[in-house]
Amino acid sequence: MRKISNKEEVEQFLNEIDIFLLDCDGVLWRGDEVIPDIIDTLKLLRSRNKRIFFVTNNASKSRKSYQKKFSSLGIDCDYHEILNSSFAAAWYLQDIGFKKRVYVIGQDGITEELREVGIESYGGSEDVNKPFDYATFAKNFKAPEDVGAVVIGIDDKFNNYKLATGTHLLRTDPNILFVATNTDACLPYSGGFDFPGAGAFVTSLATASGRQPDMICGKPSQLLLNYVVNKFDLKDRSRVCMVGDRTDTDMLMGNQGNTHTLLVLTGVAKEKDLDTLTDKDQIPKTLIASFGDLYSLTK
Amino acid sequence: MRKISNKEEVEQFLNEIDIFLLDCDGVLWRGDEVIPDIIDTLKLLRSRNKRIFFVTNNASKSRKSYQKKFSSLGIDCDYHEILNSSFAAAWYLQDIGFKKRVYVIGQDGITEELREVGIESYGGSEDVNKPFDYATFAKNFKAPEDVGAVVIGIDDKFNNYKLATGTHLLRTDPNILFVATNTDACLPYSGGFDFPGAGAFVTSLATASGRQPDMICGKPSQLLLNYVVNKFDLKDRSRVCMVGDRTDTDMLMGNQGNTHTLLVLTGVAKEKDLDTLTDKDQIPKTLIASFGDLYSLTK
Repeated sequence: MRKISNKEEVEQFLNEIDIFLLDCDGVLWRGDEVIPDIIDTLKLLRSRNKRIFFVTNNASKSRKSYQKKFSSLGIDCDYHEILNSSFAAAWYLQDIGFKKRVYVIGQDGITEELREVGIESYGGSEDVNKPFDYATFAKNFKAPEDVGAVVIGIDDKFNNYKLATGTHLLRTDPNILFVATNTDACLPYSGGFDFPGAGAFVTSLATASGRQPDMICGKPSQLLLNYVVNKFDLKDRSRVCMVGDRTDTDMLMGNQGNTHTLLVLTGVAKEKDLDTLTDKDQIPKTLIASFGDLYSLTK
Repeated sequence: MRKISNKEEVEQFLNEIDIFLLDCDGVLWRGDEVIPDIIDTLKLLRSRNKRIFFVTNNASKSRKSYQKKFSSLGIDCDYHEILNSSFAAAWYLQDIGFKKRVYVIGQDGITEELREVGIESYGGSEDVNKPFDYATFAKNFKAPEDVGAVVIGIDDKFNNYKLATGTHLLRTDPNILFVATNTDACLPYSGGFDFPGAGAFVTSLATASGRQPDMICGKPSQLLLNYVVNKFDLKDRSRVCMVGDRTDTDMLMGNQGNTHTLLVLTGVAKEKDLDTLTDKDQIPKTLIASFGDLYSLTK
């Protein structure tokens, strides 16, 4: 594992990489605060004609909505450069030629991305205020014939109506796909809070339905990496670099996908954590204190 | 494994057993329908001076509320004879000398049983209609100093407010106990429905908090069996019989607790399932088609 700590090392690194896949939280910002020198680093990369993609497991928003967060923090990007896990779920279904309807347990990001690829869905925010009791549910429940998948992600309005609906769909028809946007256990929040992440809802549905997800779309799955590789017909994955603050998702996805991997220390992982890693696929190829150093070290 | 199929076998069996621990759903009733000859069987056992306990993982009600279900189905019992998993959770905390307050994710059964043993709780049905968003929650959340446990069970009004509260309590203080009433994946309901069971909520909290339950109180845990054994100072557990319709909870608890075990075929398990059981602790010592046969075969 090499470390980047001076201008020459930055230049050598930039010469090796054409495409940057950037995790967002902990790499570009923390909460609502942009990490120092990030905006100048992104400008530097664009001035060197590097391709940039923002790869995040956040499925609460669509790419178009997420773009507004980027703008509000002063980061310019095209929404096509954002690859989040609600987009990943929609792209996955489109890629397998899925033609049916989707039941959504999650937020608007999933519904909107499905619509973008022409897949009809129901549930989601429509079911936020649905009352629930066993007798009424059992009396009224009927699985629509055209449902082919349950897509589930982080849901700040999770309830029993949605859980029971997903459970019954998956239990009554083994052909209905169980698709998870991601399985992050928690959602880091400002003030040291960790809120329940998508994984908390996915495991609930998995337990109740007696099934495991047929597909988990976000990191560390190879889905989004394969999307980029296919889109640009990349022969040499070593010229792609996955940049992230977590070894168990970001580094794992990159290393298993044979890309370069760059760990930053502005988020979850600390340098001392690397000494105790037993899974070699989680060890970054390169280490840098902050992604902003790519700019600050070259000033 | 022996089978009971005539009057002599019934008499021999009755001579061997002093205390009956009876699972309810699938043994005594299915949905709201009592299984034939059950009421006469219970009368027969009482006329022979057998002790009877009703051992169920249902934690939605307290024993006193649950007794009303028994009465409505024509089954007389004292509420002390009902050992359900909300009682088990309360008894467990009392038994370890717990003196703090409990946060409840679940229904009134838990709150009421805790009150019976003098343990104060909050949450539960008070938190059913609490709105939830990340910012407000993070701003207002403060773990009360006197909280010592989160008790979670089946919850037909589960929501993010309760999940986030439990998650933060368990994450911020490793001394706060994580107690699950039970971990049944689903709640069988009439019409072939399987609703999400306690396990669906417990796994959600386990994922979000990054912790596993410190105690799971219901079957197949030995907690309720030990309660009975200690209460009656039983030296000879072979004179206790666990009766149930499930091999993975009822038979497992009994066999691991060195009691006699009787499987009935009026619920979940079918006779052919026994051929494929790999866990010998799940194999019943004795088999009978229906618990009602104890009466009908002796007529």
